[in-house]
Amino acid sequence: MTKLFAIAGDPIAQVRSPEVFNKRFQEQGVDAVMVPLHITSDGLRTVLTGLLSIKSFAGLVITIPHKAAAAGLLSAKSQRVEITGVANALRPSESGWEGDLFDGEGFALGLEATGMVLRERHCSLVGAGGAGAAVALALLDRGIASLSLSDVQPGKAGALAERLRSVGYQCVRLADPGDDTDIAVNATPLGMNANDPLPFDVLQLKQDAIVADVVMKPARTRLLVEAQGRGLRTHEGRHMLDCQVSMIWKFFGLP
Amino acid sequence: MTKLFAIAGDPIAQVRSPEVFNKRFQEQGVDAVMVPLHITSDGLRTVLTGLLSIKSFAGLVITIPHKAAAAGLLSAKSQRVEITGVANALRPSESGWEGDLFDGEGFALGLEATGMVLRERHCSLVGAGGAGAAVALALLDRGIASLSLSDVQPGKAGALAERLRSVGYQCVRLADPGDDTDIAVNATPLGMNANDPLPFDVLQLKQDAIVADVVMKPARTRLLVEAQGRGLRTHEGRHMLDCQVSMIWKFFGLP
Repeated sequence: MTKLFAIAGDPIAQVRSPEVFNKRFQEQGVDAVMVPLHITSDGLRTVLTGLLSIKSFAGLVITIPHKAAAAGLLSAKSQRVEITGVANALRPSESGWEGDLFDGEGFALGLEATGMVLRERHCSLVGAGGAGAAVALALLDRGIASLSLSDVQPGKAGALAERLRSVGYQCVRLADPGDDTDIAVNATPLGMNANDPLPFDVLQLKQDAIVADVVMKPARTRLLVEAQGRGLRTHEGRHMLDCQVSMIWKFFGLP
Repeated sequence: MTKLFAIAGDPIAQVRSPEVFNKRFQEQGVDAVMVPLHITSDGLRTVLTGLLSIKSFAGLVITIPHKAAAAGLLSAKSQRVEITGVANALRPSESGWEGDLFDGEGFALGLEATGMVLRERHCSLVGAGGAGAAVALALLDRGIASLSLSDVQPGKAGALAERLRSVGYQCVRLADPGDDTDIAVNATPLGMNANDPLPFDVLQLKQDAIVADVVMKPARTRLLVEAQGRGLRTHEGRHMLDCQVSMIWKFFGLP
């Protein structure tokens, strides 16, 4: 029987997961399919309840803007979901949905795959939403020297910093990317649209800094183009997804 | 954005609709996919409610054993659904699910595609469930001379006959296939399993009778093999599906 997987988001046209997973299903001879689901925020709870009653439904990837709402609808959650308040992968269980969060791990693995050692680095993160929380936790977990957080809503960055400090990460401060930054990360949606403002200024970064983006489409955001123009190394958003596929695959109980 | 279609049933592994529709989506360059959903009876209502909240969900084919239950969950139904009490195609609307029934039309079109004229024929139908009701209505609608109905549960055949007479079809009687039968139809699930008993005896049929099946897997049911062995013409269940695809396609608003 064909197992069904899905990815839920709004908008949904930009998602790459179905392509990535379906290719892998085919390559590995797994009788399964992943489909995109366009779900608005007011329908999320109803859809999750409905999907639980489909016996052949085996897993759901969650994307913008549902990661926080999904975390609130779980019957069991990983420590990562507990700390960040967001989930991006759900699987059905007897008692409801179990959720975990692989965005941050995918992001960190993607950087490490380029040969980078994250330990003792000074990191700056702009955007304290779901993606930001995920990336922050994964970086801190690897023993970075410091994490500077900022958000257009200062209270949002403060709240995330507070949460991270409360679970033991004392090196979190509130600041924009600056001249001590080794790795500057955009974790806002800015860059998805061509006329978005830049999430941060690349001019104040030092010459060996790396600028990383979590935005996946376009692959080369304006931020990355500007950083590259200044001679900085850049890291595209697609790596975050590519490097978490194997973890989600395993979480979904796939062979 | 990829439109999602599905087929709901229990069991589900045997369904052919995803293959048929997905091939056609590809051929016609439609950005859509049809997936099989394994749904048990107690989950149907919940799943239907959930699917309505998926903005990209565009249509649902209903198969065994959900056709009657689905008809009971509609906000708008065709006359065919009203009369038969079963539905096999649902589409979302502002107010809920709209349902129609194409099994009977598909079956009748399939017979007509072989060059047969149904008008004035004597037809026998074994099985007064959802498929039987659909086939009965479509045959009667084409002006057949008589329809003999039977079912292992005699009350079930009687109830269907009553309903059909109440909407003006007076040529319905309760009888097994006999020597006046031009077209004998199996509308029971008997034949899906290799060791099922035959739904009716082909020995009493006249030499130019046609034996038709609604069972799709196996393509050659034991009934059809026995009928062929006696030199009778046979008509496979797959035609019922093949000949209703275009109608469902249109019902789903596809181009």
